[in-house]
Amino acid sequence: MKCITIQLNKYNAEAPLKQLSFILAITISLGFLFTGNRSVNSNPEKIKEYSLIADSLRRYILTNKEGYQWLKEVCEIGPRLSGSALSLKAIKWAENKMKQLGFDSVWLEPVMVPHWERGDIETMKIVEGGKYKNRQLAIAALGGSVSTNGTKGIIAEVIRITSFQDLSEKKELVKGKIVFYDIPFDESLEQPFAGYGKNVRYRVNGSIEAARYGAVATILRSITTRNDNTPHVGVMYYNDSIPKIPGVAIGIQDADLLAGLLNDGKKVKLQLQLNCRTLPDALSYNVIGEIRGSLYPDQIVMSSGHFDSWDKGDGAHDDAAGCVQAMEAVYAFKKLNLKPLRTQRVVFYINEENGSRGAIEYAANSAKSHRKHICAIEADRGASVPIGFYVESDSTRLIELQSWLPVLKKVNIHFVDAGGSGADVSKLKGVPLLMGFATDPQRYFDFHHSANDVVDAVNPREFSLGSAAIATMMYIIDREGVK
Amino acid sequence: MKCITIQLNKYNAEAPLKQLSFILAITISLGFLFTGNRSVNSNPEKIKEYSLIADSLRRYILTNKEGYQWLKEVCEIGPRLSGSALSLKAIKWAENKMKQLGFDSVWLEPVMVPHWERGDIETMKIVEGGKYKNRQLAIAALGGSVSTNGTKGIIAEVIRITSFQDLSEKKELVKGKIVFYDIPFDESLEQPFAGYGKNVRYRVNGSIEAARYGAVATILRSITTRNDNTPHVGVMYYNDSIPKIPGVAIGIQDADLLAGLLNDGKKVKLQLQLNCRTLPDALSYNVIGEIRGSLYPDQIVMSSGHFDSWDKGDGAHDDAAGCVQAMEAVYAFKKLNLKPLRTQRVVFYINEENGSRGAIEYAANSAKSHRKHICAIEADRGASVPIGFYVESDSTRLIELQSWLPVLKKVNIHFVDAGGSGADVSKLKGVPLLMGFATDPQRYFDFHHSANDVVDAVNPREFSLGSAAIATMMYIIDREGVK
Repeated sequence: MKCITIQLNKYNAEAPLKQLSFILAITISLGFLFTGNRSVNSNPEKIKEYSLIADSLRRYILTNKEGYQWLKEVCEIGPRLSGSALSLKAIKWAENKMKQLGFDSVWLEPVMVPHWERGDIETMKIVEGGKYKNRQLAIAALGGSVSTNGTKGIIAEVIRITSFQDLSEKKELVKGKIVFYDIPFDESLEQPFAGYGKNVRYRVNGSIEAARYGAVATILRSITTRNDNTPHVGVMYYNDSIPKIPGVAIGIQDADLLAGLLNDGKKVKLQLQLNCRTLPDALSYNVIGEIRGSLYPDQIVMSSGHFDSWDKGDGAHDDAAGCVQAMEAVYAFKKLNLKPLRTQRVVFYINEENGSRGAIEYAANSAKSHRKHICAIEADRGASVPIGFYVESDSTRLIELQSWLPVLKKVNIHFVDAGGSGADVSKLKGVPLLMGFATDPQRYFDFHHSANDVVDAVNPREFSLGSAAIATMMYIIDREGVK
Repeated sequence: MKCITIQLNKYNAEAPLKQLSFILAITISLGFLFTGNRSVNSNPEKIKEYSLIADSLRRYILTNKEGYQWLKEVCEIGPRLSGSALSLKAIKWAENKMKQLGFDSVWLEPVMVPHWERGDIETMKIVEGGKYKNRQLAIAALGGSVSTNGTKGIIAEVIRITSFQDLSEKKELVKGKIVFYDIPFDESLEQPFAGYGKNVRYRVNGSIEAARYGAVATILRSITTRNDNTPHVGVMYYNDSIPKIPGVAIGIQDADLLAGLLNDGKKVKLQLQLNCRTLPDALSYNVIGEIRGSLYPDQIVMSSGHFDSWDKGDGAHDDAAGCVQAMEAVYAFKKLNLKPLRTQRVVFYINEENGSRGAIEYAANSAKSHRKHICAIEADRGASVPIGFYVESDSTRLIELQSWLPVLKKVNIHFVDAGGSGADVSKLKGVPLLMGFATDPQRYFDFHHSANDVVDAVNPREFSLGSAAIATMMYIIDREGVK
């Protein structure tokens, strides 16, 4: 407070005062936010001690921003689709990086993963559609899609569909056609993940449902909050008892163009050519590194992300960022000489996007080990500003964790609440504390699974605050253990 | 909860589950966050009723995003420096827009404002400095700076200074030189406003302090969190009893270049040429619009931003966004037919950046009126995702406001806390409730006062959520009044 008073006296300017009053506001308000309104930890000395550590972690990470440089290095390698050569190159990079950073042990955990390739032919052209004839549309095959076969690919009329209900009502009209799922992202919801949740079924099951009625291919309006023409991909599945038809995502501006033609009553015929393919499963790896605990080496506090990505963009937010944040968190322990009592482990999972094979393998191997995870954190919601942690545990442990909010506020954590952890760590059995690291979600679907997901879309401060948030949580768990 | 269960059953895919568990998390966690931990409003019926209104406001604004289109229109006009022709053009736009939107009354409030012009000569060149001789450096005059006079401008050696303490210790060395304040943004702090607060004194008072010891000009390392070469400007002041010397900001990459040369012990001489100037005060206007209250027309609930900006970039975040959000909030009342009981007023203040003349005039005129503000909100912290409201009031009113958090959470508001409101509304006397609308601050100084502050730097969802947050707060105040 003193330094603020001094600063106030130094100014005559009007404008800077607004900034200073803001600082004052923060000073006062954080007090309000975190005292009295939450269960207060019974040990104010520890709150003080850990808060100093949180300050040190944040200070070190935000000042040096080493993790952000590593994120750049990963993204320079390129996309890391499971089974691809680039994913193996990135895995090698990660192994070397963890060794360079001085982790006590670093190893690769082998696992066979699905291996789908996009191929080099991926076009969709309007062959009938008034003035737009011969226009190329911005599309990309969904992950796992079959190819179109034959040199001409698929040439068929397109039908616009607005829901599975609509599909079922129009089932007589679908045969031999390309089904165009034109379902806008529901922007009216506060949480974009909820909007995604409403539409993702059309990506995952859209080709199955359309093929039931004889459709020959599907087009998905990209599931995104950004008004550009970049297709947003993601996994799709088939059902072995139903014909497999290709599925593509289309940029939303071209989706609007197509919808406009169809709504005008135009007959629109498209030519789709894809030579994507699924190869035999490929050998890949989870990358694991750890710093040994001094007192309880067999108790593992783990943080993780998934290292595979989609092949559009560089998977910067999804999820190179989460991996690198997890790694930077543990590295910061070393740099600040915060000798862990328990083993601090980092896991870069492979194949979260289309199979979760890395998570299944890791969980199976962990179950056989005498060393036990007491806590596993997953960072896989993009590297926007940190806001909280979602916890899968019992309510006693949740309340205990919430008592550390005065410490966590030092790294921008607003809440610790019950909620889902992550697709990978949730495969682990018998871990008392599973956590998902939460970031502000508003911009996530601007980038998600698209060419927009590159390192420039990640803000260095927001990213680095995330590393500090994970580090602080790991430190608390390391010192407190889990009852 | 039901719809989520249904969705879960529909999936076999692994990956989408992480998104669904996230939705589940939100559903559960928001309950945790806002019940029990805060003072709970005694009227659950009203909470329910207002929450439905908040949902409607958010839904309408996020779905239509009209305000974001208006923001684009403002930014297309260009920068809005007080007294400039473009600022008057923008004021005309605002007046017309409020009329088009159907506000009951729209008027301009005249006020004389400072009128500084950048001019068309603004260069800094290395004239001595080893291999960098003749290199042009990325600089921009600080607002209010004097020119360099003469055709050659100022040619002088540069001295690097790291604090006012350092300046005072080197006072014998400063005479005849250009003082280069090379003070990095303190990135280690959680709150970038605090980092800004530490450095802004060098911008505001740097030329005064350097001139005391005979310096001929000052260069300020731009106060920014972004690693690019864009100068970030802002107001500077003079003291009439001390010689007036020019002040410029330099892009941080060129600041590093300069620091590198100086740290290598190189003698560096610079040539600075500026023809900026201060003209006589100019006539300008606050823009005011309102929708009349049906029951208490003389009670005013006001929201505001400042319409002037710096002249680099288009002042998108600072503060076209705040103005347009305030306007969109009141407009949404009309569109949703939420007939206000009290008068809902929007104010676009002029001249916040370098004089606050608009705020002073508005406050003076308000003091003479029989109509009274019961609440005045200012939005001037950038249009990132909304996080809260800072309140200047007594603690009873603060606690009362906090009791509406279950409603405000619908528009992403995490807190309502004691703190500074805003540079403009804080000029008002006797208003029981002053509020500053708070957004996530982590990226603000990437854009602030620079050519980076353009509409593309504003995310449509984040911006629109902000409008919805202000609208929801205004609705609560409208219905509840202020005790």
